[in-house]
Amino acid sequence: MSGAMARGRLLGVGVGPGDPELITLKAVRALETADVVAHFAKAGYPSHARAIVASHLRAGVTELPLLYPVTTELPSCGNAYREAIADFYDTSAATIAAHIEAGRTVAVICEGDPLFYGSYMHLHARLSPRYPAEITAGVTGMSGCWSAAGVPIAQGDDIFAVLPATLPEAELTRRLADADAAVVMKVGRHLPKLRRALDRSGRLPRAIYVERGTTADAKMIPLAAKTDDAAPYFAVVLVPGWERQP
Amino acid sequence: MSGAMARGRLLGVGVGPGDPELITLKAVRALETADVVAHFAKAGYPSHARAIVASHLRAGVTELPLLYPVTTELPSCGNAYREAIADFYDTSAATIAAHIEAGRTVAVICEGDPLFYGSYMHLHARLSPRYPAEITAGVTGMSGCWSAAGVPIAQGDDIFAVLPATLPEAELTRRLADADAAVVMKVGRHLPKLRRALDRSGRLPRAIYVERGTTADAKMIPLAAKTDDAAPYFAVVLVPGWERQP
Repeated sequence: MSGAMARGRLLGVGVGPGDPELITLKAVRALETADVVAHFAKAGYPSHARAIVASHLRAGVTELPLLYPVTTELPSCGNAYREAIADFYDTSAATIAAHIEAGRTVAVICEGDPLFYGSYMHLHARLSPRYPAEITAGVTGMSGCWSAAGVPIAQGDDIFAVLPATLPEAELTRRLADADAAVVMKVGRHLPKLRRALDRSGRLPRAIYVERGTTADAKMIPLAAKTDDAAPYFAVVLVPGWERQP
Repeated sequence: MSGAMARGRLLGVGVGPGDPELITLKAVRALETADVVAHFAKAGYPSHARAIVASHLRAGVTELPLLYPVTTELPSCGNAYREAIADFYDTSAATIAAHIEAGRTVAVICEGDPLFYGSYMHLHARLSPRYPAEITAGVTGMSGCWSAAGVPIAQGDDIFAVLPATLPEAELTRRLADADAAVVMKVGRHLPKLRRALDRSGRLPRAIYVERGTTADAKMIPLAAKTDDAAPYFAVVLVPGWERQP
């Protein structure tokens, strides 16, 4: 642990998409040097990020679980939801700030990459103006998915888009037709709509459905061959570009 | 080295954006087990990927430099260019295939992520139908850039786009206005056009110019504060989304 007079620091540490071997040497070093390791989780569930790095946690390190007060799977539109989640990030940031003020280095571990669709960003926005903050980039969940599937996703001057499946059908169709390559996130109950959008945009034949993409029980099949519409929230659909291979 | 009767394999190994600490444990293991390590480079220049992993190369490992016959910075439109580059990938794939046929495991090391705008994809397309191929996902160059800049790039239902600066000005303007967050690649001599497109799409105030993003001499400034139009080919411009932070 750092001396009480040392300046504490914030570390936003990407731990990759799920495979414990897809964490970086820099992330391992951050875990070796941090006084406090913080991780987001749903109340009652283990933290995915913590599971990824379990073998690298120092014995006796202070752990700081940050438990979401509400599910992030709900549409983030209601005022009550927005206030609850903002309060949660405020409180989490204050707890971390107290550790930093006491001279401790706090590593917030994050699935994927900390600044790409990650909860850490909410802490970074609150704390980085006040304290030294260092980011350790990570392998994103989508890189993990296309790598596990062995699907080259984009090349050369391809235009690549990340689209949430929550978009209205017409907009999803337009955007799929307008990109060379795409990853559609948050598929879940939107799969029937997404299937229609892919069909109308001419992209269905190339689309690949990926579920639990970076785990041992990953499921990866051409979407056209998937006969049902069941999909978990975190399933993704890959639409590879690079149609003109030299 | 594997026995001559063992089945050889192809490994596409992402080694991250430049910082040697941003390679994964899986990439290190691949380098420890590979019989042959192949890397792309321009003739007369050292391989960036090789420099990243230099400290992890086994003594006596067989190295296979793959030297581009022509610069990839030229527009890939002419027939002569396309034929030369296709011949190069054909020949490179044949050389690797001979190693695999002899029972060797060949690791092709790639800056960033192998299947995201990487030259490895050309080898993967030629070899993965014939031989076992395994991808090790890597931290992308753009993750390295926004992490080094400490810029949260996309959140929630943001639509994220990767755009080449080579696009015509009107199309670049339209696409910048149509995405919540974007990374513009291959900036180079297109910077004056890109600046106009960012201005017309209202995104100039948030745009961040990044040069040599993941090296010790990185240059990161708001594009609006950059007073000249000099930019290397590999400079990028980040346009962060996430304008509605809770």
